[in-house]
Amino acid sequence: MTELFPTLSTRLRELKDLSGLVGLASWDQETYLPPKAVSARASQLATLQGLYHERLVDPALGELLSKAKTSARTEDERALVRVASLERDRAVKVPAKLVRELAEAQSRGVEAWKQGRDKGGFPVFAPALQRLLSLRREQADAIGHSGDRYDALLDGYEPGLTSQQLLPVLERLRDALVPRVAQWSKPSQDDPFVGRRFPKDAQWRFTLRLLEDMGFDFGAGRQDLSTHPFTGGTHPRDVRLTTRIDENNPFPAIFGAIHEGGHGLYEQGFSEADFGTPLAAAPSMGLHESQSRLWENLVGRSAAFWEHYYPILHDEMGAALAGMSLEQWLAQVNRVERSLIRTEADEATYNLHIVLRTELERALLSGDLAVSDLPGAWSDASERLLGIRPRDDREGVLQDIHWAWGELGYFPTYALGNLYAAQLHAAAERQLGPLEPRHRKGELRPLRDWLKQRVHEAGYRYPADDLVERVTGSRLNQADFVGYLDRKYGRNS
Amino acid sequence: MTELFPTLSTRLRELKDLSGLVGLASWDQETYLPPKAVSARASQLATLQGLYHERLVDPALGELLSKAKTSARTEDERALVRVASLERDRAVKVPAKLVRELAEAQSRGVEAWKQGRDKGGFPVFAPALQRLLSLRREQADAIGHSGDRYDALLDGYEPGLTSQQLLPVLERLRDALVPRVAQWSKPSQDDPFVGRRFPKDAQWRFTLRLLEDMGFDFGAGRQDLSTHPFTGGTHPRDVRLTTRIDENNPFPAIFGAIHEGGHGLYEQGFSEADFGTPLAAAPSMGLHESQSRLWENLVGRSAAFWEHYYPILHDEMGAALAGMSLEQWLAQVNRVERSLIRTEADEATYNLHIVLRTELERALLSGDLAVSDLPGAWSDASERLLGIRPRDDREGVLQDIHWAWGELGYFPTYALGNLYAAQLHAAAERQLGPLEPRHRKGELRPLRDWLKQRVHEAGYRYPADDLVERVTGSRLNQADFVGYLDRKYGRNS
Repeated sequence: MTELFPTLSTRLRELKDLSGLVGLASWDQETYLPPKAVSARASQLATLQGLYHERLVDPALGELLSKAKTSARTEDERALVRVASLERDRAVKVPAKLVRELAEAQSRGVEAWKQGRDKGGFPVFAPALQRLLSLRREQADAIGHSGDRYDALLDGYEPGLTSQQLLPVLERLRDALVPRVAQWSKPSQDDPFVGRRFPKDAQWRFTLRLLEDMGFDFGAGRQDLSTHPFTGGTHPRDVRLTTRIDENNPFPAIFGAIHEGGHGLYEQGFSEADFGTPLAAAPSMGLHESQSRLWENLVGRSAAFWEHYYPILHDEMGAALAGMSLEQWLAQVNRVERSLIRTEADEATYNLHIVLRTELERALLSGDLAVSDLPGAWSDASERLLGIRPRDDREGVLQDIHWAWGELGYFPTYALGNLYAAQLHAAAERQLGPLEPRHRKGELRPLRDWLKQRVHEAGYRYPADDLVERVTGSRLNQADFVGYLDRKYGRNS
Repeated sequence: MTELFPTLSTRLRELKDLSGLVGLASWDQETYLPPKAVSARASQLATLQGLYHERLVDPALGELLSKAKTSARTEDERALVRVASLERDRAVKVPAKLVRELAEAQSRGVEAWKQGRDKGGFPVFAPALQRLLSLRREQADAIGHSGDRYDALLDGYEPGLTSQQLLPVLERLRDALVPRVAQWSKPSQDDPFVGRRFPKDAQWRFTLRLLEDMGFDFGAGRQDLSTHPFTGGTHPRDVRLTTRIDENNPFPAIFGAIHEGGHGLYEQGFSEADFGTPLAAAPSMGLHESQSRLWENLVGRSAAFWEHYYPILHDEMGAALAGMSLEQWLAQVNRVERSLIRTEADEATYNLHIVLRTELERALLSGDLAVSDLPGAWSDASERLLGIRPRDDREGVLQDIHWAWGELGYFPTYALGNLYAAQLHAAAERQLGPLEPRHRKGELRPLRDWLKQRVHEAGYRYPADDLVERVTGSRLNQADFVGYLDRKYGRNS
């Protein structure tokens, strides 16, 4: 019996090692993998993920966990067993046949989505989506739910959160934002950076400087380039950010680096005692996203931040920013515009894109919306929420890859990130005093330290919403976020 | 029964995928791993290697292989079963307890070796070496041999080769080289590149140019920087070379890149039909080394080669090579000198370092030489073979890490590389005609294509010595190598 926890720890560390290696192989695939090695890497990843799954559902681990459940004595032991069981139970419940069918349907979904985008539009993708929906329903039933299948899927990204908690918040957010965004929106203008060229090296150095100032530890992580920026790595001491550089526009590199840096600080911030255990992880994707969005938007798009960093950027860029004042720069950084593409949306409008997707994917899953009616429903919702209709499926229902992957319940995490970010930022200011005077001097560490102590070091000990409540005193709400926007863009009449 | 080979293939591809991932994690460790992640990576690698071993010794695989042995119908099926069984049988024979003890003794060996080098010399390392010898003897007995334990270890690097074949060749090599090296040796001179600075970027570009010309496919591989150059990767379509750059001396980058490029061409040259099977591998370390040394020495240190590339290098380096003629450059590239350090030795002297180590490690393993007498024996052998005695253990018995890893039987593979390289080069010229006129024009592809067709594509189908005999008409010998040296450095009187 005394051997129980050491044996369990060894098993769990092995799983962490394997998922770390999945992280390495995935990171490498996006950064340094030679082009002809793509199918070799797919096979390597499939083998590794298969082994991970095999180890996770191994009945011996199940037995260890159920013994450990009754003999756990400390809070940490109980948390360890709870979190490990959470992941294992989900995996065990889904039959191997369904896992295989989902993997195949996902591959076909992505293929059909690409084809539809290239030519033929939504009808090319529709049958694959139909199949994915049916498999996801099956999966939701296998996992179990109390009447709302969506909850079973949502739980895969936001453990513990139910539609009953989520939907009222999203509705209030929608009702607050639709009129505000309509009022704040400025008509599109020409490329603000036309004729300017931002040297790659200078952009790279500036992003490293920002990450350094944020407290990202380059002894325990790195930044590389990739087409689609992401945060990955193998371990809290090996956190890998990527960014992309566009010589015609410095925004992707700068805000990409700050965004991924926020994710990276979270990964580096777990408690050392938790390394190698499932506790060294975020309790939800929404909370992870809160860290990237807090840094990117609430800090990185603030006037105080740029009062410090714009002169530095100006120096670094040489001629590229000649004649552009801090005020002009800030106007670009914070321009609100009702536009069609989620990934290009500003911090306010963005959330309406999420509301739209959440409404539609819930209706698809429940069957209230037929797949064939989706493009029309999309256009109508777009008109209702954003005041504009897409001209084609690429601008509309085919713009995101998520549904082609069969991801349902994922989109809300992006909005949750914004809401949690505002809640945490408000709590930090209540506890630390106003942050702007510090950020105006480039002092970003007090906020980083506060987040580490309150959020990062807790790891996976509490469900996201419970952790946020412990730290801020409030459960998930839209009020802090709307308040933040009102202070920044002006109160809605 | 019809399912037998597909099932076996799946199992073997899984093993290849896992060893590819070991390759990735190791490559990453030497190139991009953040410094604080060293122990996390050690754990990840240990987990992965443990899984590999577990899958390899799985009795179900053994059963598949023994069924496949009797039902194999084609040459390729028979080769596949033979090679897979070779690796599995070795792994099965060594008890798990001994594997663990060896791993621990190796860690302690490397630690003691480092300490001894820092302070205290050989006596600090001696007990660890004693322990490693005793475990290696146990391992050799577990693997099995016909009287000579050394053969069981040698077989791990050179499958099929015995001391009975190896030793007479090394003796003839020694007897030919001792007087020749004494005669060719030129006394050490000052740093030939003193006061010159070779820009990193220019060195990097030049190495890429050379690799491109050799036929290295950058769509299926890459070059990066590391402290100790090596060739790794995850798959024949994902071959990763590393080199190092010294701004005061262009040799490490240039000859390092050509050397690793030779290894890399071998890895990229396996037959596509063999990918994912154990046949996509070299049959021995010596034969692998023959490819690096053939390119580095027989091609890369030839006058013909530099007649083409020296003007290009000269242009690339700008002022750094001002006033240095092709003849002066070649004199540096091919300077023979009896010196103490193996890794810095020229292509002729190098082999005497190997003879020395092979003699001593055989005597240690058999017990003819006591560990405590090793430093003295080393100095005496150094005097006898090289005409010089080390001043301390760092210059002598503690210069290489191999014994600290418990590697016995490994050193001969370096000399085998030189011998096989000369045999293959001579055969290529018999079949293709003289290569120098082509190399004088920078046409390196004919040799690359010949090696690919004759050596690389055969993979692991034949033991190294058999393959070399099929390609060259002769079994392992020193004559081609000594003949090559004589033509280059002048016949010994």
